Amino acid sequence: MAEADEDVTRKLARFIVTTKIEDVPSAVRKEATRTLLNWMAVAVGGSHHLTVDNAIAAITPFSGPAQASVLGRSERFDIISTTLINGISSHVFDFDDTHLKTIIHASGPIISPCLALAEFMPVTGREFLMAITAGMETAFRVGNCVYPDHYDIGWHITGTAGSISAAAATGKLLKLDEQQMVWALGLGASQAVGLRESFGSMNKSFNPGRAGQNGLTASLLAAKNFTSSDHMIEAKRGWANTISTKQDFREITEGLGHRWETALNTYKPFACGIVIHPAIDACIQLRNENKLTAEQIQKITLKVHPLVLELTGKKTPKVGLEGKFSVYHAAAVAIVEGKASEKQFSDQSVMTPVITSLRDRVIAMADAAIKEEQADVVISLKDGRVLHKFVKHAVGSVEKPMSDGALDLKLTDLADGILSQAQVPKLIDACWNVERLSQAATLARLAIPS
Amino acid sequence: MAEADEDVTRKLARFIVTTKIEDVPSAVRKEATRTLLNWMAVAVGGSHHLTVDNAIAAITPFSGPAQASVLGRSERFDIISTTLINGISSHVFDFDDTHLKTIIHASGPIISPCLALAEFMPVTGREFLMAITAGMETAFRVGNCVYPDHYDIGWHITGTAGSISAAAATGKLLKLDEQQMVWALGLGASQAVGLRESFGSMNKSFNPGRAGQNGLTASLLAAKNFTSSDHMIEAKRGWANTISTKQDFREITEGLGHRWETALNTYKPFACGIVIHPAIDACIQLRNENKLTAEQIQKITLKVHPLVLELTGKKTPKVGLEGKFSVYHAAAVAIVEGKASEKQFSDQSVMTPVITSLRDRVIAMADAAIKEEQADVVISLKDGRVLHKFVKHAVGSVEKPMSDGALDLKLTDLADGILSQAQVPKLIDACWNVERLSQAATLARLAIPS
Repeated sequence: MAEADEDVTRKLARFIVTTKIEDVPSAVRKEATRTLLNWMAVAVGGSHHLTVDNAIAAITPFSGPAQASVLGRSERFDIISTTLINGISSHVFDFDDTHLKTIIHASGPIISPCLALAEFMPVTGREFLMAITAGMETAFRVGNCVYPDHYDIGWHITGTAGSISAAAATGKLLKLDEQQMVWALGLGASQAVGLRESFGSMNKSFNPGRAGQNGLTASLLAAKNFTSSDHMIEAKRGWANTISTKQDFREITEGLGHRWETALNTYKPFACGIVIHPAIDACIQLRNENKLTAEQIQKITLKVHPLVLELTGKKTPKVGLEGKFSVYHAAAVAIVEGKASEKQFSDQSVMTPVITSLRDRVIAMADAAIKEEQADVVISLKDGRVLHKFVKHAVGSVEKPMSDGALDLKLTDLADGILSQAQVPKLIDACWNVERLSQAATLARLAIPS
Repeated sequence: MAEADEDVTRKLARFIVTTKIEDVPSAVRKEATRTLLNWMAVAVGGSHHLTVDNAIAAITPFSGPAQASVLGRSERFDIISTTLINGISSHVFDFDDTHLKTIIHASGPIISPCLALAEFMPVTGREFLMAITAGMETAFRVGNCVYPDHYDIGWHITGTAGSISAAAATGKLLKLDEQQMVWALGLGASQAVGLRESFGSMNKSFNPGRAGQNGLTASLLAAKNFTSSDHMIEAKRGWANTISTKQDFREITEGLGHRWETALNTYKPFACGIVIHPAIDACIQLRNENKLTAEQIQKITLKVHPLVLELTGKKTPKVGLEGKFSVYHAAAVAIVEGKASEKQFSDQSVMTPVITSLRDRVIAMADAAIKEEQADVVISLKDGRVLHKFVKHAVGSVEKPMSDGALDLKLTDLADGILSQAQVPKLIDACWNVERLSQAATLARLAIPS
């Protein structure tokens, strides 16, 4: 082993155990806070999906004391069971956060068990944010170590990195010592949940929920001195070597506490595949700048990356899920409603006459000169005017992040019909002010229907 | 994909769902029954190990209703929590069953959740034996599909095959239909627990316990129509292709219901690495045939496979665990006590004068002409006689299985001090007569201290 490969697990454990919230740059804390808000939005928003109903039906007879809250609903379970459910609901719309370098959706596995723990024992907002940040940094760094080979071969990296990072985050809350944290990481790494073949089924959302449970179980065991290897991440028959043909351990250990991968986390503004985000972004900008209505429009001409038509070329979607694979519907609904959140991809939305009529006036052309993160949109109006917008980096990218206000609106939108209108601003406020909360459990209390 | 690669998951699911106990040849049912008895022995025997204590301490605050029994102890937990604990205790002595072709220890992941389920809902002894058999057949077949590459790279195959087989077995008890069983296998396959780097730590025993929980969770979810892929085992980014560089899907689908891998399961007669079993076997045979005592013996000369001295060449073990890595201690204690169960590898045993004295008269020589399953032992007595025994296949191998009586003694031995002397014969009797039990839960009731 090269020097960089030695004691990887221990170096990571030491970083997690010793880092204080004061050590985390304010920009990183801010990004972790934005991740928290986005996670709240999708966890509450997804909480009444059939996937969640089925999971709750399955585990209810076996769950323990009512220690923690299922967000957006009335059920309360033990913290391990609750972790599964909130982890599932936060992924079910495919609308959670993304670390674009690894395609890891970190929040589900990490924040779900941390919030449950915060309802079970005293945890301040600062401790909570520190734990989440330690978890995210762990997820992205172990992910960088094995990406892309690990993902390419078939692993749902959100689950595999998720188990380790959930151990890190919950172990931080449990105040594990360095040796216990080494064991927690080892036990977490031992539980590799998630294969890409699950995509398209409920199993996909199970993966982050289970990863959260895996990590929580790992740190609860380690807290009682349940041992693991001291070298689980880097050993010859440990995690990285077993689970990937590529290992770059420097990605885990170099610059710990100086270079923060957490700062690179991003959020989806639109509830569909990232490939059509540039076109939606352009349409919404043109709509808002020109106060457009569907009736004014003669045709919309999209020049897009060829992948867009390959993946989302469905012209006449009949159900909401098909709408997510239709750049035509996406562009039309973006003009009509000015957004593309989960409701814009409902069964009702793809059948609304003003939208379907505009959809039929959308022309999409593949253009190899357009990059994946770009779109070139021309809208011809009935009055003869021609409007043009070129999007270089779609909103939600690292270069052009979603604004704080857009995140607020995303939560407001997703919580609609689940939380009361009076409650939503309080929840948003609590997220932004997480560092000032004397009890992080307040976040859960505000995220269940009052 | 070749034809053999198509619909592997569904063919396996159909076999599991449609097979009736009447379809299982009596020799296979007998072997499954022997596996049950052996599992009982090690689960009860291991139940007071520190590994188990620590796991119980960790999960107790979060466990659900008292639905099922921790064997050998007084605790009762929900069926998912109980599965973890019984799965851990049954592996903690490394004394459980072995499918020698794959080194899978199938019983922990499979029987632990099945027995817990049998305490939760009505399950007859025949249903119970059928479920176990379906689970074992699944474990060994998916194991054969990916062995040896999968194991060589670093996976603890007991955990990875265990999650799938536990889903099969518990799904059979839950009477899943074919589609639900496909999903259960998919959800089970999604949870790959266990890396070989865990060997030597408590994490190793965690793996079969967690695999049992993984499979039980999978089938409970599938029973509520929580979906997975239809092709999780065979798909390009499914289980076998992601988790192994070798896949032979015929091992899973060919001869289902005709060729039974379950018939090949074996049990360890001695509580130590299999490599020194031939030497122990020879010593016990010579002892019993000649009514030997330690005092009569001048020296014991062992000719063994070179690996024996590499792995177990410790001459003066100071603690019990070191005794397991000392062919010298093993030969000596085999002569003195006529067995080599868990107690023969205790801290006390390796310090007992009559044993340490005889141990110092053991000479071990590597001989490349001796195969791994063989040993050649010569005992020179003080009265001038020379005794010789060549063991071709050690007891516990497929060629020379442990006798039913030896399994009875193994359970009796391991249960000593945990279950009452009156209770043990009843437990043994219930295992042998599992097919006649109106409630399989009787097995659990007899395996807790009365």
